[in-house]
Amino acid sequence: MPKLSFFSRFSRVLALGVLLAFGAQAQSDPLPSWNDGAAKRAIVTFVRETTDHSSASFVPPAERIATFDQDGTLWVEHPMYAQVMYCLDRVHAITRADPELAGVEPFKTVLSGNREAIARLTMPDLEKIFAATLTGMSIDQFNADVKKWLETATDPRWKRPYTALTYLPMQELLEYLRANAYKTYIVTGGGQDFVRQYAEKIYGVPPEQVVGSAVGTRYGYGKDGKPFLTKEPKLLLNDNDAGKPEGIHLMIGRRPHLAVGNSTGDRQMLEYTKAGDGARLSMLVLHDDAQREYDYGPAQGLPATKVGAFTQALYDQAQKQGWTVISIKNDWKRVFAFE
Amino acid sequence: MPKLSFFSRFSRVLALGVLLAFGAQAQSDPLPSWNDGAAKRAIVTFVRETTDHSSASFVPPAERIATFDQDGTLWVEHPMYAQVMYCLDRVHAITRADPELAGVEPFKTVLSGNREAIARLTMPDLEKIFAATLTGMSIDQFNADVKKWLETATDPRWKRPYTALTYLPMQELLEYLRANAYKTYIVTGGGQDFVRQYAEKIYGVPPEQVVGSAVGTRYGYGKDGKPFLTKEPKLLLNDNDAGKPEGIHLMIGRRPHLAVGNSTGDRQMLEYTKAGDGARLSMLVLHDDAQREYDYGPAQGLPATKVGAFTQALYDQAQKQGWTVISIKNDWKRVFAFE
Repeated sequence: MPKLSFFSRFSRVLALGVLLAFGAQAQSDPLPSWNDGAAKRAIVTFVRETTDHSSASFVPPAERIATFDQDGTLWVEHPMYAQVMYCLDRVHAITRADPELAGVEPFKTVLSGNREAIARLTMPDLEKIFAATLTGMSIDQFNADVKKWLETATDPRWKRPYTALTYLPMQELLEYLRANAYKTYIVTGGGQDFVRQYAEKIYGVPPEQVVGSAVGTRYGYGKDGKPFLTKEPKLLLNDNDAGKPEGIHLMIGRRPHLAVGNSTGDRQMLEYTKAGDGARLSMLVLHDDAQREYDYGPAQGLPATKVGAFTQALYDQAQKQGWTVISIKNDWKRVFAFE
Repeated sequence: MPKLSFFSRFSRVLALGVLLAFGAQAQSDPLPSWNDGAAKRAIVTFVRETTDHSSASFVPPAERIATFDQDGTLWVEHPMYAQVMYCLDRVHAITRADPELAGVEPFKTVLSGNREAIARLTMPDLEKIFAATLTGMSIDQFNADVKKWLETATDPRWKRPYTALTYLPMQELLEYLRANAYKTYIVTGGGQDFVRQYAEKIYGVPPEQVVGSAVGTRYGYGKDGKPFLTKEPKLLLNDNDAGKPEGIHLMIGRRPHLAVGNSTGDRQMLEYTKAGDGARLSMLVLHDDAQREYDYGPAQGLPATKVGAFTQALYDQAQKQGWTVISIKNDWKRVFAFE
């Protein structure tokens, strides 16, 4: 009876598999780094309601769009955005290539290494630095420069690569949403080309799902006759504030069902998301944990700053419009994977 | 022996299923509306080589990007782009709402219905018509207007909805690519917002995979306090010529492995695609079938026109750079599904 024997074994394996699958489903927690609390419950309820066919809030898979701010939402943004650190570091490279620039402001100040003087650079100064370090080169050259930098640059506090400083609870949330057929997008004020260099590797978000501030490119031909694109000093999309819903429309063309941000620059994205029909979840990360990360939320009465401004008005709007506030201190069991 | 009986039947069903699956695989032709010829062979070879793990030209699924021009590539563009017909029709609606406009050129000419006069409208005239009919309204209003128009507007030759005039062989190609884990994008000179209203329904291409000419939007609030986006008369992306690879970089961030176009406006997209490493397939649809569709390819020695210009120089470049020319007359067994 070799057949019976085979199928008997097969049936046992099958039964075991079914039991394991059920058991796994009942026991597994898709968000193990989240404490049980209002934020976690809001997420789990939202996902259940929008993916259950029998629910009034069911969302067809094609319409399941989730958008995440990056700096301060998916990874650390203090004391300074990683991309700004990249631009400051690049000043050394470009002044080596063009020594005349070394004597010209604002490059001279950057080269001095004087942190206080660098911190006092004005927005027009920074714009000159951004234009010099983020435009004028081919896309391929830019991509190579960013990748090389990411391999060696480290955060000043944790002495780890910037790419290690992603929030574990947010990684779990991205995964959980994707496992439920949500398309996860990054919608960042940072440079679209910059973030695309690592988003797939560190967040599982492919380049075409990264929306960011973007300059135009110019199509041309190399000496070998091969076409290539050059980054132009012409801002096409400032993906901050109202630019976020505008960028979402441009690049996605659908209103998100879920959005997460952490600063005033995310206000319009969170409003726009929440104002849609049916189930919509807008969430705001509150940085209130000086010990494990940083504390710059409104509880401290800090004024609006350029990096991750979280004003009292933003907090009040979250309460009023039913956005879910995520407290790093209270809602996150672990902050980083390396802890 | 109920168990044996169950599993015996199960094993027969299983065996039958396997046989059927193999049979179907051996017999089914993913491109039944294509004649056997160089174009079809180029497609099948490309797909096999880029999806076979053991092939030197294997492309990981995440990098499988295919871009399609729309007008003249996926659907009929003669005698005039559907979107231009939409704009001309909309002039009637906007002059009803604002009667003063009815006496002002170029709207007066459009309202006259005089086809020859309308055909003589200049580019600045058309730009005024585009600005008046494609901008100034909310996204929701625009979407509703387009959907309503699509339900009733018909093509002058076939007397069918424009959405019925897609090319069956191209529908098969889109499906075939998607079945092989390619992400299919439309990259059109037409309006991104316009094409997004029907692309998912008629091509299976979701809004976020439609790249087109795009105006900026402005975020604001309605009387009810709800946020909405208004279409602004400010061109962000002219998705023609060099604008196609530039738009692909902006919206996708990866170089396509396959691209299909049909006019000089697609030249740079086809060049850019073909110039990538590994297996790249650039294809050019030649309209050479006056009986079943239209004939405006270079064989007729026609000069470059605004609609679907296919010049001799473009044809020569295709030969020189190894793009595959698709002859509607010779390569397509059927042109439309309704035939």
